[in-house]
Amino acid sequence: MRHLLSAADLDKDQAIKLLDLAEDMSDVNDREIKKLPTLRGKTVVNLFFEDSTRTRISFELAAKRLSADVINFAAKGSSVSKGESLKDTAQTLEAMGADVIVLRHSSSGSAHRLAHTDWVGSAIVNAGDGSHEHPTQALLDAMTIRQGAIKHPRGKDLTGIKVLIVGDLSHSRVARSNLILLTTLGAEVHVCGPATLAPASLVSSGRVHFLLDDAIKLVNPDVVMMLRVQQERMSDSFFPTEREYARIWGLNKSRLARIGENTQILHPGPMNRGLEIDAASADSKNSMVLNQVRNGVAVRMAVLLTLLSGEAS
Amino acid sequence: MRHLLSAADLDKDQAIKLLDLAEDMSDVNDREIKKLPTLRGKTVVNLFFEDSTRTRISFELAAKRLSADVINFAAKGSSVSKGESLKDTAQTLEAMGADVIVLRHSSSGSAHRLAHTDWVGSAIVNAGDGSHEHPTQALLDAMTIRQGAIKHPRGKDLTGIKVLIVGDLSHSRVARSNLILLTTLGAEVHVCGPATLAPASLVSSGRVHFLLDDAIKLVNPDVVMMLRVQQERMSDSFFPTEREYARIWGLNKSRLARIGENTQILHPGPMNRGLEIDAASADSKNSMVLNQVRNGVAVRMAVLLTLLSGEAS
Amino acid sequence: MRHLLSAADLDKDQAIKLLDLAEDMSDVNDREIKKLPTLRGKTVVNLFFEDSTRTRISFELAAKRLSADVINFAAKGSSVSKGESLKDTAQTLEAMGADVIVLRHSSSGSAHRLAHTDWVGSAIVNAGDGSHEHPTQALLDAMTIRQGAIKHPRGKDLTGIKVLIVGDLSHSRVARSNLILLTTLGAEVHVCGPATLAPASLVSSGRVHFLLDDAIKLVNPDVVMMLRVQQERMSDSFFPTEREYARIWGLNKSRLARIGENTQILHPGPMNRGLEIDAASADSKNSMVLNQVRNGVAVRMAVLLTLLSGEAS
Repeated sequence: MRHLLSAADLDKDQAIKLLDLAEDMSDVNDREIKKLPTLRGKTVVNLFFEDSTRTRISFELAAKRLSADVINFAAKGSSVSKGESLKDTAQTLEAMGADVIVLRHSSSGSAHRLAHTDWVGSAIVNAGDGSHEHPTQALLDAMTIRQGAIKHPRGKDLTGIKVLIVGDLSHSRVARSNLILLTTLGAEVHVCGPATLAPASLVSSGRVHFLLDDAIKLVNPDVVMMLRVQQERMSDSFFPTEREYARIWGLNKSRLARIGENTQILHPGPMNRGLEIDAASADSKNSMVLNQVRNGVAVRMAVLLTLLSGEAS
Repeated sequence: MRHLLSAADLDKDQAIKLLDLAEDMSDVNDREIKKLPTLRGKTVVNLFFEDSTRTRISFELAAKRLSADVINFAAKGSSVSKGESLKDTAQTLEAMGADVIVLRHSSSGSAHRLAHTDWVGSAIVNAGDGSHEHPTQALLDAMTIRQGAIKHPRGKDLTGIKVLIVGDLSHSRVARSNLILLTTLGAEVHVCGPATLAPASLVSSGRVHFLLDDAIKLVNPDVVMMLRVQQERMSDSFFPTEREYARIWGLNKSRLARIGENTQILHPGPMNRGLEIDAASADSKNSMVLNQVRNGVAVRMAVLLTLLSGEAS
Repeated sequence: MRHLLSAADLDKDQAIKLLDLAEDMSDVNDREIKKLPTLRGKTVVNLFFEDSTRTRISFELAAKRLSADVINFAAKGSSVSKGESLKDTAQTLEAMGADVIVLRHSSSGSAHRLAHTDWVGSAIVNAGDGSHEHPTQALLDAMTIRQGAIKHPRGKDLTGIKVLIVGDLSHSRVARSNLILLTTLGAEVHVCGPATLAPASLVSSGRVHFLLDDAIKLVNPDVVMMLRVQQERMSDSFFPTEREYARIWGLNKSRLARIGENTQILHPGPMNRGLEIDAASADSKNSMVLNQVRNGVAVRMAVLLTLLSGEAS
């Protein structure tokens, strides 16, 4: 693996191998001394053109636990704001010795562009590009689902597991990456959200639902993945009001009572409590939110290790 | 010790033990190689909801000198500004593996709330909560006072030492924590400030003074601790003008000449030169300001060590 | 060497010694494990009163590759904005154990002031002070020129090499430091820029040119160093329009064709493509821009090592 740009970069074997390695990393994170010397002398740069403290910290900790040197480069207030291009910034970072560039950018496709030109030789990790993809989020979700559904998860895929993704499907990079990866891993993935926001490509699949109540009844999901409502979308003409959204697509106490006792609830965070999820659901025993965060560090350690081990895994 | 939330968490033995450990850490900081491997593989998060570069750097250096991994989380521009609660933020950080959360927050009581709910299992250090407490500041002040007053300070308390705290007593977390800790350690603590700002609870003690000249004469202090005037208070109706403040409560050359030759002058920094302290006093041989900064790192190393050693000290 | 404040601090032997050490550091940066344990337990503080992400990261990586602890102190939003003076800030950092303070400041002379008072004992590196000096930039430029011009550069000076510096000469700290250092190293340095911006002190030298086309023809340079046009200068009354600037002093395809095939093109970055340099020149095989960035980390490692080794080199 040379880069991680899209969930589509991984076939089933590669995905399982990464998840298994993430389980090993999770064991490291449970130890008294949460540290491996493996990436000593390597340099990981978090190149963030958008603020995302959680994702940045997760990658920063992953790199530090592997003993790499980490540089945080927030594009704001940097030479980027003096008009420097992505190309010049990335080449500068590579020249300084960046072995991995973790890129967060508001433009869809920016990570691909960086990787598929001859601009840099560093490995690129897509940490979210516009409304396109966020593959490490999909990996941490898959890891969480697998742990919750399968007792001894190592080596296993997600065959037979039904996942319902709920929210603004056309603008969510989390949804897109999960749709790809969970399908690769054999899960049966359904989606539910406002008709105005349903991806046309999925409508014919018979796995698109428009009302959450119907979807829960029809699908009987093992996993309900709630997407974050992005405040900046709320003013779009095709977006429902907050009240309407919460009423039709929000996960709440009454819907919680109607899903299976062991159904996992996932949310990429940070949650808008009262909007796409209510407090009862967010804090219920079904909520996997903190497992997702925990697995996020482990998955990112596994990705960094795989990219820097030089194996063509 | 599970958390450090308030100076009141420490009885006299615990306080002396911490100060003695801080002396050991100070020795480490004087070495050619200022580094111990003790906290390797531990994660310390500086969770700062208020800017405070000095305090953040002091904790950051303390953690790094003990070989811990350090994450700086400035709430500004993070998901906190997207509406995430303190609870969600703290749980997220714990899920990422934070062993200690160093919390700076503008709301009094926030560190207690974080520690005394079942939200997180991480150790909490209060690095300043509103106008409530700042216990590591009190510890570094106590350490400075003890070093200045007692030749071989290890194992000793502050019995017989007279401390005069001068300034806005009702809004100062520095004053509050010092009043508690210095009293615990046996010092005789007096306060002096505008009557409008004197804490009602102290007035009956006979140790409250309203004019600095009187206080110096009456108390004959071994230590004068000047509080920082907070600019945001200056517009409050009960606050004197800058000029009046400096004239009545400011430490200046003429007052400096009237305190004892060995009287220590403390200030938590950064100083408003010309307001609560003039340049002659700030730069005099009596000024312990830089000793306080130096001891700050040592005290924070001692606190982190004590919290993570797991001893019920 | 106690501080590095100006390119004038270095005589020829010292400069060559530093460049040779930087070559060793460059070898370290080419290794699989880019790390030396030499500065373990030392503390390097980047004290930046101006934003400069590139320079800050370059110093941060240099320090980390030598295993030092690094603190980034951005003056914005810190107690500095609460009115703290440079003196108090620097003394605070030294009290916290800063072995080296890397200072970036908008005021010319600030690094000298910090070093030549008795304020602090830390070593000071000038990382850019106003329009005055930027000595590590000159060192990395000299290293790049030497590598490009001389096959086995160790031990060599720049005798016989002709360098043409092009741009706003009176406000450029890069130009000033390079003029000094390259001359010390024996190079023949010419300058070219708008007459309104030519340093009066140089006019009589016969090495000042006003039109880039003439300068290229007359000097036949081995190195063309393009200065960055600072946007904030563009509104000054003595500054030409962007269009006029690019036409007369910009490096472009047609001028590129008229310089020697092996002429090196240097630029301190970030580049204003289309203004002082066009894309064809910036991306040509003559462009040394990324070599400069790469050498920047190596040079800063050499400077930190030299300052902290305690040798009177």
